[in-house]
Amino acid sequence: MYHLTALVTLLAIAFYFFTSLNVSRARTKTGVKAPAMSGHPDFERAFRVQMNTLEWMPIVLPALWLFAVYISDAIAAGLGAVWIVGRVVYFVGYSKAAAKRGPGFAIQGIAAIALWAGALGAVMLRLVK
Amino acid sequence: MYHLTALVTLLAIAFYFFTSLNVSRARTKTGVKAPAMSGHPDFERAFRVQMNTLEWMPIVLPALWLFAVYISDAIAAGLGAVWIVGRVVYFVGYSKAAAKRGPGFAIQGIAAIALWAGALGAVMLRLVK
Amino acid sequence: MYHLTALVTLLAIAFYFFTSLNVSRARTKTGVKAPAMSGHPDFERAFRVQMNTLEWMPIVLPALWLFAVYISDAIAAGLGAVWIVGRVVYFVGYSKAAAKRGPGFAIQGIAAIALWAGALGAVMLRLVK
Repeated sequence: MYHLTALVTLLAIAFYFFTSLNVSRARTKTGVKAPAMSGHPDFERAFRVQMNTLEWMPIVLPALWLFAVYISDAIAAGLGAVWIVGRVVYFVGYSKAAAKRGPGFAIQGIAAIALWAGALGAVMLRLVK
Repeated sequence: MYHLTALVTLLAIAFYFFTSLNVSRARTKTGVKAPAMSGHPDFERAFRVQMNTLEWMPIVLPALWLFAVYISDAIAAGLGAVWIVGRVVYFVGYSKAAAKRGPGFAIQGIAAIALWAGALGAVMLRLVK
Repeated sequence: MYHLTALVTLLAIAFYFFTSLNVSRARTKTGVKAPAMSGHPDFERAFRVQMNTLEWMPIVLPALWLFAVYISDAIAAGLGAVWIVGRVVYFVGYSKAAAKRGPGFAIQGIAAIALWAGALGAVMLRLVK
C-alpha cells in the first residue's frame, strides 16, 4: 500500500483548494464580480496562482503515483512534499508581485520533473526487461 | 474491485464533458469567436460553469478513489453521485444567473469535502497503526 | 501491470507540459506580461491550446486507466497514443489559425470517446454479471 503517497495527495489537494478559496476572497476584496475574471491586478494574481496550481495537478498527481508504484512510496511522498512547499512559496511570492513568482515556481517544477523523469526511467526499464 | 466508483468516475467525466460542449454551443449562440473567452455574459457564465467543474476534478477524482480504496466502494460511489447531482444543480442555476449558483455549489462542495475528509482520516489511521 | 498505459500517461503529460512552455514562449514573443491572459491573438491562441489540452486531461487520463484495467493495457495505450497524435495536430493547426484547429480536435476527441465508451461498457458488464 502507498499510505504516504495517499497522504501527500490529500495534502496537495488541500493546498490547491486553499488557492481556490483565496480567489473567492480576492473577489470580495477587489469587487470583481462573477463571471468576470479580470478587472483588478490583485484579483488577477490570485486567480493566476490558482490556475497555475490547477495546470500542474495533471502533471504532478499521475507522475507521483507512477513513481510510487514503480519506485518507492516514501521517495514519491518526499518529492510530493517538496512540490507542495514550492507551491506555498509560489503562492506567497506571486500574491505580493508577479515578479516574485520565480523561486517557488522553480522548486515545484524541479520536484515535478524529478517525479516524472523517475517514473519514466522505471517504466522504460520494465518494458525493455 | 471498485466497479461502482469506476462507474461514477465515468459519469462525472461525462457530465464535465457536457459542460464543455455547452461552451461551444454558447459560442455559436452569442457570437464570441475562439480564441476570445469573453464578450457576452451568457458565454462567460457557460465558460465559468465548465471552468469551475474542471477546477474541482483534481479534488474530487483522487479523493473519490482514495475513499473507495481505504473505506468503501459503495459509499465512495454514493458521495460521488451526490457530487454529480450538485454539479447539475450548479449548472442549471448558474446558466440562469450568477447569483443562482450557490445551492448547487454547496451540495457538490459538501460531497467533495466528505470524500476528502473520509480518505484523510482513513489514511492517517493506517499510518499510526 | 500496465507498463504501456503508464508510458503513454507520461508521454501525454510531457506533451501537455510542452504546451505550457509554449505559453511562456508566447508571452516573451508578444509582450503580454503576467498576470494578463489576453492582449495579442498569438498569445491567446497559445494559451487556448494549453487550456484545451488541460480541459481534456481529466477526461482522458481516468478513461485511459479504467480502459486499461477493465479491457487491455495494449489497446488503452494504443488509443492513448492516438489521442497524443491528435493533440499534436491540434497544436500545429491552432498555432497557425483558430480556423485550423478542427482536424486535430476531431482525432483526439474520437480517441477519448473510444476510451470512455469502452471503459463504460466493460464496467457495466461487470456490474450486471
